[in-house]
Amino acid sequence: MEEITLQENTGQKIDFKSFEGKEVTLCGMVQNLRILSWGAFLILRTPYYTIQTIIENDSTDLALNDILVESAVVIKGTVKKAVIKDKAIFPRDYEINIKSINIISTPSEAALPVDTTKKEMNVHLDKKFDYRPLTLRHPRERAVFKIAANICRGFEEYLSSVGFTRICSPKLVCSGAEGGANIFKLDYFGREAYLAQSPQFYKQIMVGVFGRVFEIGPVFRAEKHATSRHLNEYISLDFEMGFIDSFLDLIKVEANALNAIFKRIETECANEVDLLNIEVPRIDRIVTVKFHEVHDIIFKNYNKDYRNEKDLAPEEEKLLSEYAKSQWGTEFVFVTHYPSYKRPFYTMDDPDNPEVTFSFDLIFRNLEITTGGQRLHKYEDYIKKMKRLNMNTQTFESYLQAFKYCMPPHGGLGLGLERLTSQLCGISNVKEASLFPRDINRLEP
Amino acid sequence: MEEITLQENTGQKIDFKSFEGKEVTLCGMVQNLRILSWGAFLILRTPYYTIQTIIENDSTDLALNDILVESAVVIKGTVKKAVIKDKAIFPRDYEINIKSINIISTPSEAALPVDTTKKEMNVHLDKKFDYRPLTLRHPRERAVFKIAANICRGFEEYLSSVGFTRICSPKLVCSGAEGGANIFKLDYFGREAYLAQSPQFYKQIMVGVFGRVFEIGPVFRAEKHATSRHLNEYISLDFEMGFIDSFLDLIKVEANALNAIFKRIETECANEVDLLNIEVPRIDRIVTVKFHEVHDIIFKNYNKDYRNEKDLAPEEEKLLSEYAKSQWGTEFVFVTHYPSYKRPFYTMDDPDNPEVTFSFDLIFRNLEITTGGQRLHKYEDYIKKMKRLNMNTQTFESYLQAFKYCMPPHGGLGLGLERLTSQLCGISNVKEASLFPRDINRLEP
Repeated sequence: MEEITLQENTGQKIDFKSFEGKEVTLCGMVQNLRILSWGAFLILRTPYYTIQTIIENDSTDLALNDILVESAVVIKGTVKKAVIKDKAIFPRDYEINIKSINIISTPSEAALPVDTTKKEMNVHLDKKFDYRPLTLRHPRERAVFKIAANICRGFEEYLSSVGFTRICSPKLVCSGAEGGANIFKLDYFGREAYLAQSPQFYKQIMVGVFGRVFEIGPVFRAEKHATSRHLNEYISLDFEMGFIDSFLDLIKVEANALNAIFKRIETECANEVDLLNIEVPRIDRIVTVKFHEVHDIIFKNYNKDYRNEKDLAPEEEKLLSEYAKSQWGTEFVFVTHYPSYKRPFYTMDDPDNPEVTFSFDLIFRNLEITTGGQRLHKYEDYIKKMKRLNMNTQTFESYLQAFKYCMPPHGGLGLGLERLTSQLCGISNVKEASLFPRDINRLEP
Repeated sequence: MEEITLQENTGQKIDFKSFEGKEVTLCGMVQNLRILSWGAFLILRTPYYTIQTIIENDSTDLALNDILVESAVVIKGTVKKAVIKDKAIFPRDYEINIKSINIISTPSEAALPVDTTKKEMNVHLDKKFDYRPLTLRHPRERAVFKIAANICRGFEEYLSSVGFTRICSPKLVCSGAEGGANIFKLDYFGREAYLAQSPQFYKQIMVGVFGRVFEIGPVFRAEKHATSRHLNEYISLDFEMGFIDSFLDLIKVEANALNAIFKRIETECANEVDLLNIEVPRIDRIVTVKFHEVHDIIFKNYNKDYRNEKDLAPEEEKLLSEYAKSQWGTEFVFVTHYPSYKRPFYTMDDPDNPEVTFSFDLIFRNLEITTGGQRLHKYEDYIKKMKRLNMNTQTFESYLQAFKYCMPPHGGLGLGLERLTSQLCGISNVKEASLFPRDINRLEP
């Protein structure tokens, strides 16, 4: 037996101001090295910083040419003030005069297949994904996933502050929530199982337990189309809440959650916001428009006739965004009252017009990022609807228990993390907002 | 187009003290109803509270017998001071005198298959799981999952505070990290895919990007044995950190993270701690013991001879826990230096004794809850080790890229959420710490 004294872990951010003129030790990897006549600028990548350090020729015995980009190093040096313009560098008001540098690990190949030291990598998407372990080290790529991490954190923090409990629902399930053929099947000890298309059934069940719940987790869609808007595995930010008066309550919670996320990004990711030129939005007022009105708006204003289409075309989402921004002064449009046949069986129809549902999508900067709505909550209504749709109620027996033993009026939504991230960061293909994207052609890395 | 003014969402906790003598409105479900001569005690379950309310006979036109347990109701009433002993009730220093009660939804069956109003449900595990949508509404069950939610939150908060970035790695993968046959297979658009047994490869890759990363997500193990210690799908709390001096750095971070979690549980889950009689532990000093010493300790002190066993038997984990508590005064034992052949290929062997690894398990209250260790970080070491183990390096090409383009010395661990939850809450079967457990016989609800 041996005993180790517990220490508060180091790893907090450095307050560079109070370290001015003093020595610090930093571990990190060489993001970039620019050799000049007097020495070199070495940009060091650490968990918090991408900091500029300065190696003067006489400060080290190392041949500067021997320091390879991406090497892991430990440096000691003196903090001094600086004024740095490069947006990929953080902090920009301090730099470090290196006194010693210790190389502890080096790349096996000096020539990297992608040059991550350039401002923009400018590589084809496939190459970017093929070399993901390397290309993610580029400052712009890293910034995207700092934003994504903070979206998750903001979502969790806001919802926890208003009484939501985090749940972890199973991803191996015995029936699909969204129906259709877009479901991955697998053998589960001799019986057929599926990968959850959403936590829908479970989050509803949990409303009966906790009243308000949320989940952050992967969902799986076996969709065969390869588009810039789809992933076969993505992270869904879900919430579900009981005792709503109408689906507008859901929209209000979502608007508040998004504002909390945006505020967090402004404060915690100021550097990433700057580097990626993100315009952090804010929802000050909520704009809703009924589904059936959208076709008309697009026809009248853009002379594009989608009036016979049963869904919103991607082009309509784009034009609606444009219209909403110029005419209504908002980047967020909640499209409501989707047709009943477009929504899953658990969606509540409008009793005054059963052709439409108490549901909504949220369009943000040209793309649908959320689908939500009020759900049926009465057992009898489920049985009636499922029979009408020729569904086998037996298959859903354990889900239907929740309603048999009573559920309050409730509803919820799912927000696609990669879609929100991509629209915030100005990324045109949602796959680039996934660390290791999965599509019909890609299962690795 | 319609416009809705954004309101800060209601849903914050009520400060009952400042509401004493005043009226409040609460939505919730009837946890219990006890009818007496003068009226009834109605226990109301809301997202924050399980609060006692009082219905006097003349305060409502409702026949008290018509109020069914589990109904969804909206009550209005006056807050007054109380002294309540029932640990399942919260708050215990206030109750509500009901002025009006509105039943908005009722169970379809008045007779529930499990009586959730009893202090203990006392039902067989299978029945408890078969009726999960109902049985989770029992106060003791709910308390367990409030604890679990706060473990996740504490893990995230602590690690974020010391520079770790949250990642979301894919669960659909093209090769298993842990090897062996315990892996679920599925068809992925005509090629074979697997469900991730752990985020191992991805979190290592991401150390090259962010230096320190963590993940909270599901992992999948196709293990055929049905024990009280295993789940086929569980939530893994993972972290991975670069620039470690040795695996002891990982143990220190884990100890600090656990202490942060325990502190959070004490403050945020005081009621649940009380209800479940949880002794919230604290790690004040870290106790490590080498794997090869454990067999001897057990043999010497308990006369049980496992000295020829190549792993720790469950009984040994139990006896070691007992021994550590009485002899070393700790509930946490880090067992280190597991034999090389017991650990996956990426584990770093001790260069002074390649028979053992720089790895560890954490035993907490009779059960292993964590496996971790230092990993190889040099590309050449991976190739050498994989060749020695007759592994096809081609299969792991994209993973190996990370090392080719340089990785710092690093390591990490995985902590089983359900195991930590069950040991904290004094639950003997880990399945009860999973909302919807998956085992060889169970895929629903």
